[in-house]
Amino acid sequence: MRVVVAPDSFKGSLDAPGAAAAIARGVERAMPDAVVAECPMADGGEGTLDAVLRACGGAAARGTLEVGGASGARLAAGYGIVERDGARIAVLEAAQVVAITDRDGMAAPVASRSTRGLGEQVRALLDRGVRQFMIGLGGSSTNDGGAGFLAALGMRFLDGRGADVAPTPEGLARLERADASPLDARLAACSITVMSDVNNPLAGPRGATAVFGPQKGVAPAEIALVDATIARYAGIVERSLGRAASDRSGAGAAGGLGFALMLVGGTMRSGAEVVADLIGLDAALDGAAWAITGEGRSDASTLLAKAPSVVADRARLRGVPVSLVSGAIDATALPALSGRFDGCFALPAGPATLEACVRDAAALLADRADAVARVFAAAARMRQ
Amino acid sequence: MRVVVAPDSFKGSLDAPGAAAAIARGVERAMPDAVVAECPMADGGEGTLDAVLRACGGAAARGTLEVGGASGARLAAGYGIVERDGARIAVLEAAQVVAITDRDGMAAPVASRSTRGLGEQVRALLDRGVRQFMIGLGGSSTNDGGAGFLAALGMRFLDGRGADVAPTPEGLARLERADASPLDARLAACSITVMSDVNNPLAGPRGATAVFGPQKGVAPAEIALVDATIARYAGIVERSLGRAASDRSGAGAAGGLGFALMLVGGTMRSGAEVVADLIGLDAALDGAAWAITGEGRSDASTLLAKAPSVVADRARLRGVPVSLVSGAIDATALPALSGRFDGCFALPAGPATLEACVRDAAALLADRADAVARVFAAAARMRQ
Repeated sequence: MRVVVAPDSFKGSLDAPGAAAAIARGVERAMPDAVVAECPMADGGEGTLDAVLRACGGAAARGTLEVGGASGARLAAGYGIVERDGARIAVLEAAQVVAITDRDGMAAPVASRSTRGLGEQVRALLDRGVRQFMIGLGGSSTNDGGAGFLAALGMRFLDGRGADVAPTPEGLARLERADASPLDARLAACSITVMSDVNNPLAGPRGATAVFGPQKGVAPAEIALVDATIARYAGIVERSLGRAASDRSGAGAAGGLGFALMLVGGTMRSGAEVVADLIGLDAALDGAAWAITGEGRSDASTLLAKAPSVVADRARLRGVPVSLVSGAIDATALPALSGRFDGCFALPAGPATLEACVRDAAALLADRADAVARVFAAAARMRQ
Repeated sequence: MRVVVAPDSFKGSLDAPGAAAAIARGVERAMPDAVVAECPMADGGEGTLDAVLRACGGAAARGTLEVGGASGARLAAGYGIVERDGARIAVLEAAQVVAITDRDGMAAPVASRSTRGLGEQVRALLDRGVRQFMIGLGGSSTNDGGAGFLAALGMRFLDGRGADVAPTPEGLARLERADASPLDARLAACSITVMSDVNNPLAGPRGATAVFGPQKGVAPAEIALVDATIARYAGIVERSLGRAASDRSGAGAAGGLGFALMLVGGTMRSGAEVVADLIGLDAALDGAAWAITGEGRSDASTLLAKAPSVVADRARLRGVPVSLVSGAIDATALPALSGRFDGCFALPAGPATLEACVRDAAALLADRADAVARVFAAAARMRQ
């Protein structure tokens, strides 16, 4: 019996490979004869690069490039190169450059943070001949509309007197004109897949600043002003390129980096779907008897394009039952989740604090997977 | 597919029928085609009578007798009569008469509590021609060595001057002689099954007073004295009857009521085993696809003769897998429990307080049973 173990990370306690290993340990304890395939998932955010590198094994290599972080301070940002059908695909992750968990970046005010480093990464990889990019957008600290990314690739942002302005919210407040002619021409020959689960537009009440700005440090009183700056910047950039993207679904991802990437030809896809493709999840599921997925907390949003749902959909297509073991299950979402998963389980073995669940996550996850696997094995043994 | 649902009570939140109903609700939600048999269990303690009456349906009748409670105050104590093979079996429960949860009884000092009321019940049923008794001992507030029970059935307890002493710890402190000749002769013709999971002897360091006395109100400083009183009482009673029972396993059950019942011919059995027989658990399990049991909290003691273990053993004998859903699972006992049950699960859907688990027990239990049933159903559907 083959069992596919494909969890997302348990944020705050286990990364996806760690979660997969814990589940696998539990399943192997309960089903000593089972063959367990560990396929840690990701959704395009932090951990995406590691999940892809791990899953692609020998066909993937990890590299590091020194680029500017959100605040401009230099940092070593990881990336991956996956060989597929003779082509090299670069796997980038915004969180490697401008992570919201990066202390240096977050120490600078959001008004001065930019995505320039990600543009530097792309430029360096273009120099090495790479023309296929997969870029995960989750977990960024920036709200620059992707201006930094565009600037690093050549676009110029100018004030009323023709002087360059910084590609940051505070610099863009003085923006009068953009010059797209120096933009790296090699971008036109590239395939850029943008991984994101965000469907917000760039600006307005559902835009990047209004929805995600506060968690990045945009003060409530400044939201309207910053949003207007970003909207104005978008109009100027769109006119300079003769293309529009600010109203598209996902333009508001990663503080507007989604907008900039779509503007240079990027195609937005669900991060979890792209990761599932990259790691070969379908092939792992073919002929499997059972799949287990999970995440830190499952609620109604899990049913959107989150990793567990992508695993469930692909398993269901192949007639493979799929169970969910998460840190916690939102009781109000349970009826809906139960329609998608063959059993939804949480970590605690009894009354427990969040701290204890986080601290003991690996052991609890193994125990829970063990218990669920015993039920599965018992039913599978049954001859009706 | 037939599923047997046979939980014990979830103490503090759900009685056994309530727990069975919640589990059945969850199973039916997940497996609309399943036939669910609700077989609430008990272990001889509080709830035993209700479980038996419920399971035996038309073959059982509930009655009430007014007798003295632990403190002597009159109370209406329930009992059951089960018709089986033409004979009437009386099902009694010490907790109906001297419950540790009874406020009146607990308001009196333990030194003045007695089991007289249970003897009154037996005498009244003897008057009605009953000769088979099944008596559950769990959950008592008394520590009288069963003297009250014996006194109600005629035995006399006398001081040095030949005056009667109360059949209570404080009365027995003055005991010099017992007269067994007035003891009800009909007892000799009776079959008395005593239901208990306690294997302690009557006295000594593992005896009733030392082990169970403190929870009933025996002060630490008084344990040695009370234990000596009970040991002395036992010697006097044994000599008067020419029989011994104080060293037998279970003599220390229900504050020594086990001793008194064995002295008059009672046979001690695991409460859960007797209840399983009375409710016809074996017949329910024959041909079933799956069983679910549970209890308030599962730990190493569950593996002794507790209700879930009895269900597991009988299910295993018939090749029926059995899963455990309890309020909480002691993590240190999980490896051992996992050897006995096909999957052990707890109530919480995430970090949760004990209060919330108790408050929401029915809904959580239904949800957990639902989830486990979905795994079982998915595996059972699988064609290998």
